[in-house]
Amino acid sequence: MSQNLKFVQGNEACVEGALYAGLDFFAGYPITPSTEIAEHLAARLPRIRGKYLQMEDEIASICAIIGASLTGHKVMTATSGPGFSLMQEGLGYSIMAQIPCVIVDVQRGGPSTGNPTHVSQGDVNQARWGTHGDHAIVTYTASNHQDVFEMTVEAFNTAETYRTPVILLLDEVVGHMRERLIIPENGEMPVVERLRTSVKGGVDYHPYLPREDGRLPMSDFGGENRYNVTGLFHDMWGFPTDNPKTVHELTRHLVDKIQNRVHSLARFKEYYLDDARVVLISYGSAARSSLHLVEERRSRGERIGLLELQTLWPFPAGIVRERCAQAQSVVVVEMNMGQILREVKVAVEDPEKVFLANRIDGTLISHRDIMDIIRISQAKGV
Amino acid sequence: MSQNLKFVQGNEACVEGALYAGLDFFAGYPITPSTEIAEHLAARLPRIRGKYLQMEDEIASICAIIGASLTGHKVMTATSGPGFSLMQEGLGYSIMAQIPCVIVDVQRGGPSTGNPTHVSQGDVNQARWGTHGDHAIVTYTASNHQDVFEMTVEAFNTAETYRTPVILLLDEVVGHMRERLIIPENGEMPVVERLRTSVKGGVDYHPYLPREDGRLPMSDFGGENRYNVTGLFHDMWGFPTDNPKTVHELTRHLVDKIQNRVHSLARFKEYYLDDARVVLISYGSAARSSLHLVEERRSRGERIGLLELQTLWPFPAGIVRERCAQAQSVVVVEMNMGQILREVKVAVEDPEKVFLANRIDGTLISHRDIMDIIRISQAKGV
Amino acid sequence: MSQNLKFVQGNEACVEGALYAGLDFFAGYPITPSTEIAEHLAARLPRIRGKYLQMEDEIASICAIIGASLTGHKVMTATSGPGFSLMQEGLGYSIMAQIPCVIVDVQRGGPSTGNPTHVSQGDVNQARWGTHGDHAIVTYTASNHQDVFEMTVEAFNTAETYRTPVILLLDEVVGHMRERLIIPENGEMPVVERLRTSVKGGVDYHPYLPREDGRLPMSDFGGENRYNVTGLFHDMWGFPTDNPKTVHELTRHLVDKIQNRVHSLARFKEYYLDDARVVLISYGSAARSSLHLVEERRSRGERIGLLELQTLWPFPAGIVRERCAQAQSVVVVEMNMGQILREVKVAVEDPEKVFLANRIDGTLISHRDIMDIIRISQAKGV
Amino acid sequence: MSQNLKFVQGNEACVEGALYAGLDFFAGYPITPSTEIAEHLAARLPRIRGKYLQMEDEIASICAIIGASLTGHKVMTATSGPGFSLMQEGLGYSIMAQIPCVIVDVQRGGPSTGNPTHVSQGDVNQARWGTHGDHAIVTYTASNHQDVFEMTVEAFNTAETYRTPVILLLDEVVGHMRERLIIPENGEMPVVERLRTSVKGGVDYHPYLPREDGRLPMSDFGGENRYNVTGLFHDMWGFPTDNPKTVHELTRHLVDKIQNRVHSLARFKEYYLDDARVVLISYGSAARSSLHLVEERRSRGERIGLLELQTLWPFPAGIVRERCAQAQSVVVVEMNMGQILREVKVAVEDPEKVFLANRIDGTLISHRDIMDIIRISQAKGV
Repeated sequence: MSQNLKFVQGNEACVEGALYAGLDFFAGYPITPSTEIAEHLAARLPRIRGKYLQMEDEIASICAIIGASLTGHKVMTATSGPGFSLMQEGLGYSIMAQIPCVIVDVQRGGPSTGNPTHVSQGDVNQARWGTHGDHAIVTYTASNHQDVFEMTVEAFNTAETYRTPVILLLDEVVGHMRERLIIPENGEMPVVERLRTSVKGGVDYHPYLPREDGRLPMSDFGGENRYNVTGLFHDMWGFPTDNPKTVHELTRHLVDKIQNRVHSLARFKEYYLDDARVVLISYGSAARSSLHLVEERRSRGERIGLLELQTLWPFPAGIVRERCAQAQSVVVVEMNMGQILREVKVAVEDPEKVFLANRIDGTLISHRDIMDIIRISQAKGV
Repeated sequence: MSQNLKFVQGNEACVEGALYAGLDFFAGYPITPSTEIAEHLAARLPRIRGKYLQMEDEIASICAIIGASLTGHKVMTATSGPGFSLMQEGLGYSIMAQIPCVIVDVQRGGPSTGNPTHVSQGDVNQARWGTHGDHAIVTYTASNHQDVFEMTVEAFNTAETYRTPVILLLDEVVGHMRERLIIPENGEMPVVERLRTSVKGGVDYHPYLPREDGRLPMSDFGGENRYNVTGLFHDMWGFPTDNPKTVHELTRHLVDKIQNRVHSLARFKEYYLDDARVVLISYGSAARSSLHLVEERRSRGERIGLLELQTLWPFPAGIVRERCAQAQSVVVVEMNMGQILREVKVAVEDPEKVFLANRIDGTLISHRDIMDIIRISQAKGV
Repeated sequence: MSQNLKFVQGNEACVEGALYAGLDFFAGYPITPSTEIAEHLAARLPRIRGKYLQMEDEIASICAIIGASLTGHKVMTATSGPGFSLMQEGLGYSIMAQIPCVIVDVQRGGPSTGNPTHVSQGDVNQARWGTHGDHAIVTYTASNHQDVFEMTVEAFNTAETYRTPVILLLDEVVGHMRERLIIPENGEMPVVERLRTSVKGGVDYHPYLPREDGRLPMSDFGGENRYNVTGLFHDMWGFPTDNPKTVHELTRHLVDKIQNRVHSLARFKEYYLDDARVVLISYGSAARSSLHLVEERRSRGERIGLLELQTLWPFPAGIVRERCAQAQSVVVVEMNMGQILREVKVAVEDPEKVFLANRIDGTLISHRDIMDIIRISQAKGV
Repeated sequence: MSQNLKFVQGNEACVEGALYAGLDFFAGYPITPSTEIAEHLAARLPRIRGKYLQMEDEIASICAIIGASLTGHKVMTATSGPGFSLMQEGLGYSIMAQIPCVIVDVQRGGPSTGNPTHVSQGDVNQARWGTHGDHAIVTYTASNHQDVFEMTVEAFNTAETYRTPVILLLDEVVGHMRERLIIPENGEMPVVERLRTSVKGGVDYHPYLPREDGRLPMSDFGGENRYNVTGLFHDMWGFPTDNPKTVHELTRHLVDKIQNRVHSLARFKEYYLDDARVVLISYGSAARSSLHLVEERRSRGERIGLLELQTLWPFPAGIVRERCAQAQSVVVVEMNMGQILREVKVAVEDPEKVFLANRIDGTLISHRDIMDIIRISQAKGV
């Protein structure tokens, strides 16, 4: 067991999770506060015959992993806000062409180069809406290193299962802080391998024809089956088309394969929600302060609880609605201007009872900041 | 008057509006369905001693206009979805450094290269959230050529007034169709000129210190005043800082200068709303079909009206709420999976009465498509 | 007119109002921030053959004015929190014996000696509940010097009309700031003179038998009519009794003569309430910041208004309920932990929509502080 | 056991409780109906080397116990309404300087000298709001002699734990009636001793710096540590300051140390609440009549119950809300104009279902008086 217990940064926990999930190709360009991910993989991947590519920029990075994924590899890149903005065009390509990949955004303050060495959760809506056109996306996050590990594995599993890019949205505090991580034995956590087609050569392989269960078997590009890959709307063989029916169906497929699975994709943790009158909803490092507050107030007998979201997109509206049904007030705790707040307000029965506890100055929100908002929401003053 | 009456494409109406507003620098890379904007400006700008730059890609294009704006020019670029995704990083820079510019996105189907020659309104949320970090943005749209002209002038005026990029979100149908345009005389429409500082040299120029009215006088870069321009959070002299108070205040300034003016930035048109029981809310080419339907049903005595939005961001929630207060049902008509629908549902008193009439196959939504949804919403069957 | 225009402190405006109303007897003990009232009256009263008594403490002060009032004078004392606490026993006596007097409390921070030179509004509930036993009380306040003058006159008028002590609750900012005051001509404002009995000698004078209109004519003590004055429950001649029926009726009389006139005793000012979605409720110096905010936001088209209370007790619940009926949110602005907030929450239809914007550190609440709370109440974050 | 069983007045039960808790210093001035407390302590204290001081008035009394407490004694004074009004200034000092003491107010009818030999519960709100400035307070009450004993011990324990004055609000009926009291053995009930600092001399003692658990160790004044005691806002050494941050924090400390412990400070008794459709809420002698009624009606099978409050302040709103959640109607039974009624109306979900059964004539409310109100509340006629 001792070799499985580590004292690491969150970025390293992400690296461990990726390797556990089978990552064997990483391409990236260093940017604070994500750089340790690249740094550790540069050392680790060659030892397991994986590939580490140092690219010239973030556009090259995402294009490299898309290409590598097509040829059969499990792939990842890691960046922060400015790099994530540059990846938006490539991200759209991987959505349209349905190419599994994991993109880590360790959030700093923004917009632009912003506040590189400080924490923020300002890219939540960008993860959902950053690339153009109608689409859906899966975005995971985590608040501690064990969860970073597990959600990284989950990100790879989801990417492979649904042939989709998955965004792993960490933040500077989680990325840089050190705490304990226990790496599970092989086999302890499920790892989803790529679904490869069993069709061999000929013309019977339809790369974009979903099976009955909605999954699309892949064929390693450059291998036995020849097929077309494009960012244009395309038919079941991959050939471009502007036929309205095909365009409609492909749009719906791209959206539905994720939105229709909102429940099974929902990862979250619950603390003291059974009888909570005040429900905190939080994620990432902000959820750490939220949990601190909840445990402090519970020890005084106050009926407060926490719903920690680990899946941000597709937004688990049903879960949120249900968990908030009995609450007198709901406080969304996040380090931005209220990006998840918008979703919670739409999800709950009574949006008037939803408040925002936030911080936008690069400082980790504290349990006191949250308590101040609860006081104000209860009209108890400063 | 004859010389002021033209029969043009929407993209040309945009060009005429930009020139009327004082555009003297354009940089771009051609992409369907926006190409005519570049094409016409390549011919027009040199004649008025303006500059037209054909760049190597969209990243270069937005960077070129940002630089030119800093030196005192009124600037614009034009693109479509894939190019707009590539511009997201540069867009964030212009938000952070508060550099006036106008970015036209003539929407096609997406994501990725998508459906280049067909209409869509799928980039509405990208215009709001495409770049990383908390920020606000102004986004205008229009449904006919006279309005394209006017909203283009408005886009320049707003960009110069608030030192902000402004997105002009057209769509393929409006961009490519031809109709009548009357160009107003000079002076008929107000044109906002850049607010230049009166400080001459010395150390008294504070490039990021708002005046009492919230506006920040500019100084042509390379001219009398030396100052720093950066995408990092910065103080009133432009020097980078991670001081939490400064970060907080700059974030709030970037957001508030726009969000606090949601009312004065709201441009919209109203048709028959006074006694309407069914209120359509639409924009862009979808608003043309909506207006067609409203006039057809009014001639039969049905109490139906249209609220056509020309400002999409900041979303005019107050206007929407008020105009829908008396309605029995509200139908949002747009050509995407319901991006403005989300905002309308949050804005109105009762979200249960809001319905979506949409089309996502590259075909212009018709008045019949909308009528089908109205019937269904009234439980009258398809 | 020139002699009627003054540039004075709020405490001087109070002095001018008292003299206009007919004050001819003042007893007090100096205490910051009320001292200027004593100071100016020490100079002014002797010139009009009035009496100024410098007492040894606040208990002596309130007892002196009670005695003087009984003999036919219009009386006032002025103090701040600690002195007001010492006056609570005497205050109860004037309630029980129904002796007209005006008590000015220029609020500083408390409890105890607290924060003598800084502003607070922490004595609101003490004005209502500071003395023991069931009773009612009239308490006025004001936010500018013209209003301080008028409410002081009103305080004397109400004291004389209903034979009751009236509390005038000012605060340090209003007391010490200087602004313009126009003193009306004699006769311009109504002045209520004491209702004296027309009964001469004999045994027909019933000092505690209300007339049909509820008022009790007085007889100058030491004059023609002999009668008993006591703090004990008493009958219509003033003789002590513990007869349950008499105790019940006197308690109800003391309460009803004020509570049943809640509407006619209500003094308030309205700003932009007609279409307000956000209603501020404030009083005293906090109302100045509230009005500042309202006018600033109205100029941006925001639907915000202000209800400024000048009568705090009896609390004008009906007025508050009515003015808040259409509001989406109500923000009580006061410089304490939410004392008027409690009343507003009870008064309105939906207490969940009532928020508190407060400040408790001796600093005047600013329009920005209020705006922060509005933002938080609307879940817009810090 | 025989020596522990007594047949006493409620005032004597209070004396026994105080001595059990460790009282060794009492200063007071006699006033009906509290006089027996002073009388008995004058006999008892000298025998245990405690001090009894007969003071010249109530102001002197509270000041004497504050001084004695500072030097390390457990202290108490006792009075009735008029004396309690006189103590308000001293009470504020003990709040601000955080000096443990117990103040007994055996309520008579008021205001002023009122109805000395008859019962009332009219000082409930005065106990909360009688002294000026924002603050919090603990107020206990009891309805029978065993409970008077226990709540007196509790009052001392709370005063010592939180360095705060505690009000013990008895009433004339409880104070004067005689019934059985069993005095527990030493050790049977917990007794909280003063938390003294372990710091010896030097400059390391910070008399106003809370420990991690929020408690402030004391140092006997005049002993090893020199420090400042003041009624002004002060820093952690006790030196006066008007620094806004310090003022804010001390105000919040004074309020939060009590308000944040509303749950753990709540003492109450429940009778038949599990299935009650009519819930009575009462306290003090009124709770005796309430319990009488409940037991009478239960014997007829009616679903009625009683929540007897022993903690009045901080008001246990959460307990009240929860216990009333299933009730069809709630009747507050008290002998005033509805002082606890106000709190109950704010606490419960639906204030429309709360009624008041009261009596304000000096006579104990009877079970018939209460039944009349229940009938009326159920529209069954008088």
